[in-house]
Amino acid sequence: MALTLTQLADCLGVELRGDGEVLVDRVATLDAAGQGAVSFLSNSRYRVQLARCKASAVIVAESDADQAPLAALVTDQPYVAYARAVSLLHPRESRRQGIHPSACVDASASIDSTAWVGEHCTIDANVRIGPGSQIGPACVIGAGVHIGDECDLIARVTVLAGAQLGDRVMLHPGVVIGSDGFGQASTGDGWEKVPQIGSVLIGDDVEIGANSCVDRGALGDTVIETGVRIDNQVQVAHNVSIGAHTAIAACVGISGSTRVGRHCTLAGGVGLVGHLTIADHVHITGMSMVTRSISKPGSYSSGTPLMENTLWRKNAVRMKSLDALFRRFKNHKE
Amino acid sequence: MALTLTQLADCLGVELRGDGEVLVDRVATLDAAGQGAVSFLSNSRYRVQLARCKASAVIVAESDADQAPLAALVTDQPYVAYARAVSLLHPRESRRQGIHPSACVDASASIDSTAWVGEHCTIDANVRIGPGSQIGPACVIGAGVHIGDECDLIARVTVLAGAQLGDRVMLHPGVVIGSDGFGQASTGDGWEKVPQIGSVLIGDDVEIGANSCVDRGALGDTVIETGVRIDNQVQVAHNVSIGAHTAIAACVGISGSTRVGRHCTLAGGVGLVGHLTIADHVHITGMSMVTRSISKPGSYSSGTPLMENTLWRKNAVRMKSLDALFRRFKNHKE
Amino acid sequence: MALTLTQLADCLGVELRGDGEVLVDRVATLDAAGQGAVSFLSNSRYRVQLARCKASAVIVAESDADQAPLAALVTDQPYVAYARAVSLLHPRESRRQGIHPSACVDASASIDSTAWVGEHCTIDANVRIGPGSQIGPACVIGAGVHIGDECDLIARVTVLAGAQLGDRVMLHPGVVIGSDGFGQASTGDGWEKVPQIGSVLIGDDVEIGANSCVDRGALGDTVIETGVRIDNQVQVAHNVSIGAHTAIAACVGISGSTRVGRHCTLAGGVGLVGHLTIADHVHITGMSMVTRSISKPGSYSSGTPLMENTLWRKNAVRMKSLDALFRRFKNHKE
Repeated sequence: MALTLTQLADCLGVELRGDGEVLVDRVATLDAAGQGAVSFLSNSRYRVQLARCKASAVIVAESDADQAPLAALVTDQPYVAYARAVSLLHPRESRRQGIHPSACVDASASIDSTAWVGEHCTIDANVRIGPGSQIGPACVIGAGVHIGDECDLIARVTVLAGAQLGDRVMLHPGVVIGSDGFGQASTGDGWEKVPQIGSVLIGDDVEIGANSCVDRGALGDTVIETGVRIDNQVQVAHNVSIGAHTAIAACVGISGSTRVGRHCTLAGGVGLVGHLTIADHVHITGMSMVTRSISKPGSYSSGTPLMENTLWRKNAVRMKSLDALFRRFKNHKE
Repeated sequence: MALTLTQLADCLGVELRGDGEVLVDRVATLDAAGQGAVSFLSNSRYRVQLARCKASAVIVAESDADQAPLAALVTDQPYVAYARAVSLLHPRESRRQGIHPSACVDASASIDSTAWVGEHCTIDANVRIGPGSQIGPACVIGAGVHIGDECDLIARVTVLAGAQLGDRVMLHPGVVIGSDGFGQASTGDGWEKVPQIGSVLIGDDVEIGANSCVDRGALGDTVIETGVRIDNQVQVAHNVSIGAHTAIAACVGISGSTRVGRHCTLAGGVGLVGHLTIADHVHITGMSMVTRSISKPGSYSSGTPLMENTLWRKNAVRMKSLDALFRRFKNHKE
Repeated sequence: MALTLTQLADCLGVELRGDGEVLVDRVATLDAAGQGAVSFLSNSRYRVQLARCKASAVIVAESDADQAPLAALVTDQPYVAYARAVSLLHPRESRRQGIHPSACVDASASIDSTAWVGEHCTIDANVRIGPGSQIGPACVIGAGVHIGDECDLIARVTVLAGAQLGDRVMLHPGVVIGSDGFGQASTGDGWEKVPQIGSVLIGDDVEIGANSCVDRGALGDTVIETGVRIDNQVQVAHNVSIGAHTAIAACVGISGSTRVGRHCTLAGGVGLVGHLTIADHVHITGMSMVTRSISKPGSYSSGTPLMENTLWRKNAVRMKSLDALFRRFKNHKE
């Protein structure tokens, strides 16, 4: 789709410095952009590429605007403006409507006439699917699930009985919503499965990445609040609650009944044990292990730095004697 | 389903203290329970909630029974009794029988007349499915797979050729059983795939969580013994063996040929390298890295505690000099 | 399939020491092998088993050949020769051709007449599938995807729009190729999704394990070069590039835009942050955290060793005071 820079600037709500008649029809990186492309600079490490950029225009912050040797679209949030420019110049394929003949849809399901149910889907009793929602191929939707408006279940998504999804929820392939939580009661000589009778509530504008899982509550519900963004291969256990606008990168695991606050970020591979409470605006760096509640906003970390293997071996074995060293040193000092 | 407290106590094999005629029809948490609900106390941290609990009855240990201001169902395993109460009061939907017309079932497959094969399933040659087993929608069952009695493959489960499942095995959505192990022989300038010709043997009463994988053996079989409980997103590599009644939480990875004993627990995110032997009754805390065999029962851990990021940066860099510090300190002392 | 040892030695290109007329029809471990079986020794820890091995022949290195009390197939790469022997003696079932009637195939798709599209597959517009490729049951192939020759998509694989696969690519169940990368622009009070408009390029002879994910590029492509081998539950984020013949074990996570070199090995559970460059011939041990680029070939590690839980508790808490200790010790010395 082609727009003039004036049109683009208007749509993005940014200031244009340059020739408004120039046409653009795509986005591209600073390095790869040519005539007709819009690029962006949001990370100062790429600033040196600005001088030689061949794009027709670049989205930049005020502080970089004077460096731009080409038309500039100036905003205090260049990355957000870029995201919106992509949506404008590369609109997604048009949405489909109806039910593919290969889908198995229970007679009691209520599917809006503007929604789409794709190939080989299975839709169980009393499912409700709202206007414009797209259920891609090979999805399985359990009894009583409600899916709001304009949702996207890309393909091969499973949403089990009773889960409730808000509007504009995007679930990527392989996602499982509402699987049983891991409730096992020890009988002394084995395990008795604790039936999981809660459900999953997902707010509006939530995105969940490929092959991630959100378990149903044991009693009560697992809750993902509005605007939460979850990457691939994330595990959200039963009765977890994730506050609005929190972002969770790939391979994170959150154990049962832990409550994560709003506007948090969990980087890749973080693990949280169960029954914790994490405050709002907490940021946890990659692969950290969280075993206690966090009451104060801020950035937290654990883990050890990478070393050459021979050095690591020498240091790692010393960690076993760290307490002994502290004790000896204390005695020595006195 | 509604029961009198006398009926419930009889079914659970626990002692009732209170009015046996009271009807109950559901379970609920101490906090949320009202008239007609049964609650339970198995974690002493919730004991304070007992005093204000509005349930019709509460399942408790003897030591808490006198604190209960309401009818008490007394047992030395409150969590197990609670698990059974859920099953009684919230029975699962009735099991289905037959084969959905959209399923593709090989003519040589032998499916018990009381089993169910759901929508869009693919059942290959010589599969055997036992009485009462439920194969949910979109499952793929490879040639020669045997599935015992009363199994539940919830949805979108893959069981590849030759795997053998016992009775009452529950596999959650996205589970993959019998995928190729990661066998790669180095040719010096690349990798030659080592064909994986073993299989997977799964005992009775095993549960495997959503999106977990169990690879087939390279030669010989991968073995999951009876009563093993596995959570979501767990990876079990080729020729691993997991002893009876071991429980494995989410995001654990077990490398090839490692043998885990019986009655072990592996908490979330634990990793085990290959070719280890882990004794019975070993408990490993979350995100621990296990690089050696463990011959003694007990609790084991690794990892570093969470710190504020600025403090962590200062400490983490010191880990690179830990061995040097020990050496200097030793010299200094002498 | 049965071969004489002479035939087998010829096919493998190895030297036979023993009776060339003996027939063999299978492979087996040193321990389990009997008459008619070929075994192998590639790991010296199993050398003691050689003396009592009952196989008809054993594949060994020159240095072990004189220890073998039976016919020996001598090569400097026993594990590679074994891999090829498995392929010869245990050939995979014959490949199928055609399109299963339950598959939904867009009229514009071009599927070679020698390829197979299995049960309940969904093949979108302009897909191209090359000679001999096998698309197993319940796969979803998005618009414009090209799949080369002799590929194997085992079952329940998702390849989203635009991805390009080379020849002899093997994708195991649950694999997701081309899901959206995790691009989220902070608006200050929430997140704006950054549309992901790049794709995925996969070279020849790549294998990707069960439930692994490879995200599409944000702009530009995610690239997996020829001969890369990836295990189960691996996460490859947007715009990552993985060099030829690199092997990645299970549960590894690679963050966005990181470039991994050629002939690297990443052991299980390793995590790499984004925007790194890892040199060729880098080997990273299990569960290591990689937060900086690596320019020098070699072996690298991080993490702490396993301890009994009581000892670990004492040591772990000391890690919070490590920097303080170094400072005190430095002062003390002076």
